Order: sequence, then structure tokens, then C-alpha cells
Amino acid sequence: MTLAQQTIAIVGLGLIGGSLARDLTARGARVLGHDRDPETVRHAMASGHLDAALGDDLAGIEDASWVILAVPVDAAAGLLDLVGSRARDAALITDVGSTKRHIVERAHRLGLAQFVGSHPLAGDHRCGWGASRGGLFEGATVFVCPEERTDGAALTHARTLWEELGATVTCCSAREHDDRMAWVSHLPHVASFALALAVGGQGNRVADLGPGGRDAMRLAASSPALWRAIGLSNAEELSRAVTILEGELQQLRDALERGDGDALERRLARAAGWMAAG
Amino acid sequence: MTLAQQTIAIVGLGLIGGSLARDLTARGARVLGHDRDPETVRHAMASGHLDAALGDDLAGIEDASWVILAVPVDAAAGLLDLVGSRARDAALITDVGSTKRHIVERAHRLGLAQFVGSHPLAGDHRCGWGASRGGLFEGATVFVCPEERTDGAALTHARTLWEELGATVTCCSAREHDDRMAWVSHLPHVASFALALAVGGQGNRVADLGPGGRDAMRLAASSPALWRAIGLSNAEELSRAVTILEGELQQLRDALERGDGDALERRLARAAGWMAAG
Repeated sequence: MTLAQQTIAIVGLGLIGGSLARDLTARGARVLGHDRDPETVRHAMASGHLDAALGDDLAGIEDASWVILAVPVDAAAGLLDLVGSRARDAALITDVGSTKRHIVERAHRLGLAQFVGSHPLAGDHRCGWGASRGGLFEGATVFVCPEERTDGAALTHARTLWEELGATVTCCSAREHDDRMAWVSHLPHVASFALALAVGGQGNRVADLGPGGRDAMRLAASSPALWRAIGLSNAEELSRAVTILEGELQQLRDALERGDGDALERRLARAAGWMAAG
Repeated sequence: MTLAQQTIAIVGLGLIGGSLARDLTARGARVLGHDRDPETVRHAMASGHLDAALGDDLAGIEDASWVILAVPVDAAAGLLDLVGSRARDAALITDVGSTKRHIVERAHRLGLAQFVGSHPLAGDHRCGWGASRGGLFEGATVFVCPEERTDGAALTHARTLWEELGATVTCCSAREHDDRMAWVSHLPHVASFALALAVGGQGNRVADLGPGGRDAMRLAASSPALWRAIGLSNAEELSRAVTILEGELQQLRDALERGDGDALERRLARAAGWMAAG
């Protein structure tokens, strides 16, 4: 069972979906694609990164052995209903969203035992087909979230998909995944957005930032619509994380206001020590 | 008046001082150096990036036409007393610290009209001689902070120094500099430290971060001692900036908790729009 034997439908040809189309066609899979922007589909076809375009309402997706939803998390849930009815025989249906609990619950309600949620940690602040590239998943971590009732063969297919593209697969429950992402991915994004709002709100310009400030705020260039959806779909744990971050800032500010250098340095050293521990 | 005609003393051979030593010897200046670590001095001499070592209590600094203090901001103030008494005849005394108000006031009290504070925006989370490199200042912005009573020739020397190393010089008052740095540099550092404290405090590891999270926290690997000193020397404006950041986080959290996607996206879009405006 290799990639070359699969017919793979990719819905959404942005950064992730586009990069998948590039890698999968390069490995000999037959790739069917869809994007809400017809121009993107034409471009992907013309450059040889798609074998065929799916029609209206995903017509043609019935032929796919594997289906990958590569759209924002709020769009994926609704799309799953359509895919579930049209691609009932697919051996694997997966997605690539940054939160997993909602979509996994929806698949469960639809009785799609061949659904396995995936989340490649290969995002970027850029988006769209223009940002996609071959080899994006080489060395990346991909979370795969099977549930109790997930079909074992589908899980094997999901592992094969990502491992053949060079990624390392980590399995965990959707709940565990979302709780973890709130800290290691969603909170950094919120922090970066908030930092840009604070700095930008004082009449500073991005051009005034040094290289460090630019790195710290890079994520604030991410898609607002995408992060609205991610934030809302993980709001509970993310709110908790933001509250903790506010508390850490307040502690650092207290030390500054009191002129307590020892307390300040102790906290900074704890952060730096954690960074150094890797 | 070129660099090659100068005898330049550099006190502190870390990232900034070491990089200065490399660039200035390469341009034919005679460079005298000092570091609290004798091993660093030996290494710099052996690799041809220093012409001579300064002795105890900076003996030999009398020969320097220009003096550059490249030590943390809390060490620079005390050192300036010593330099002021030993290098009275130097045509330029400058420093490279991230805050300028304290050191400029100290120079004023010491009657050192040839002191001009500098701040190259070329820092890095790494530090020490090992992190120094030639060409560090190419394309960098360097703030130069003359006061009313600053000697005009000294200001010209300071401009020459940085411009010959490829930097762009921006002149402003020390007060204006520190207020601005609180936002574009010091706040991003505090945010990054706080983020690492929040994420690390929940049992996550750096290895669990995606590339975005790693960028957002990169500054948390900066030197705690250095940032203690910078924070304390700009505590007032920095505290104000941290308060504003806390407020922005709270607003984002409120939108998350209320499930108000429109309010959330409006704020994220404001941040992303500011980033895109450059």
C-alpha cells in the first residue's frame, strides 16, 4: 500500500493543501483537487500538481480512496457532511486543522469510522497556494488523533500518508491535542497578535522593530479569519492560557515597578533556563 | 579622518564589542581591548582581532582617540567614571547599551562633553565573544543620542564610526530613544520571557513548539542579567508598555470567552493590518 496506488482528493489548495498536492503528485499518487478559487485550481493543474479538478459540490470525489480536507477549521466541519455523503467508500478521510475536538466529534456523529483527524505542525504566517511548496512536511511533527471507534485501517493509512512525506507522527486524543496546542501554538499566536496591537497602537511602525521584535511579532501577520476560527474552536483552554500569560506579565511588571532586580532576574532566568533545556 | 587613523579602545568583547573589534581591525584601526574574561582577550589577540590588550583598571586606555564601552548597561555607568578619569583626552567616548538616559546623564554629571551614547539595533539572544562576527552592523540601525552640550566633533566621530561599519545612524534624544525602545524592543523581550514562563510552567517543552512558537519565544533565551539591567534602567516606560499589553491580551480573552468571533477577528485584523503596512 503505497502513495502511488492511491487516488487522493484534496479539498482546499492553500499552504497545506497546495504543499500536499505538490508532494503527492511527485510521489506518483493520482491527485484530485478543489479550491474555492478556480484560478488556483487552474494554476495547480497547469503546473502539474493536480491530475484532475473536482466539480461543483465536490463531484468526482467518489473516486478517491483517501480524502484530505485542507480548509480552515470552521469550514472543515460543514464540508465533512458533504464529504461523508459523497465519499462514503473512501478508506481514509482526514483533515489538517489546528484544532481537533470539534471535527472529530462531528465525524463521530456522522458515523465516519474512517475519519482520522490530523494536524501537521507545518503552518506558517503566510497562506494560500502561493505559499505552498514541496517538502513542507519533511521533518515536521504531525498529530494524528484516533478515537476508540476509529477504523484501524484508516489509522494505518493516515500514518502512511504523513510518514511517506517525511513527517513524524504523534498519536493522541483530540482533547489532549487541543489542550496541548492551546499552549504551544495558540497562545504564542495570541501573544504575538496582542504584542502587535500594543506596539502598533502607540504609533510605532514595523520598520522601527529590531530583528528580535520582528520575530516576536511575526505570527501577528497570520490570517485573522483562520485564527478567529482556531481561537473559537479551542476557546476554553486558550482563555485559561491567556489568563496565565497575563499573570506572568503582571509579575514581571510588579518586579519592574518595585525596582526589584533580583525578583526580575530570577523570573527571566527561569524562562531562559526552560529555553536552554530544549 | 578615517577609521584607519584611530586608536580605538573597546571595553567588553561580547557580541557587540567582539564584532566591533573584528570590523575595526579589518578596516585598519588600531584596536585596544579589554574583557573581564582574560581568555576572551587572549583569543581575540591570537585571532588578530585585537592589536593590544588594556591592563588592569584599563591601563593603556590613555592612548585611545576613541573609547567604546560594550558592557551591560548596569556595568557601563560605573565604568564611565573610570574611563572619564583615564581617557580624558579621547575625542569620542561612546557606549552600545540598549538604554541611554542613565548613561547620558552620568556623562553629563562627569562633564564628559565628548560622550555620545550609541545603541546599535544589532543585538541577538546569543551573547559573548563566541557570538560575535564581522559585518554585524551592515544595514543595522544605530541610534546616536547627542545632548545640547555634546561636543560637535564627538558627534561627527560617532557618525563616522557607525556609518563606516555599514550602519544607518538615527539621531534622537536619550529620553526619546528610551521611550521608543520600551515599545519596539524591551516590550517584545518581556512578552517573550512571559510567554516562555507561561508555556514552560505547564510542563510543556521547547521541543514541543512549532516553528511559530519557537520564533515567538526566541528572545526568552536572552541573557537574564542583561535584561534585568535593561528593564530596570527603563522601568517606568516599560511598565506602562507591559500594562498596555496586558490590556490587549485581556480584550482578546474577553472576545474568546464571549465567543464573539467578530470582535476577535476585528482585533486580529488590526494587528495583521499593522504588520502588512510595514
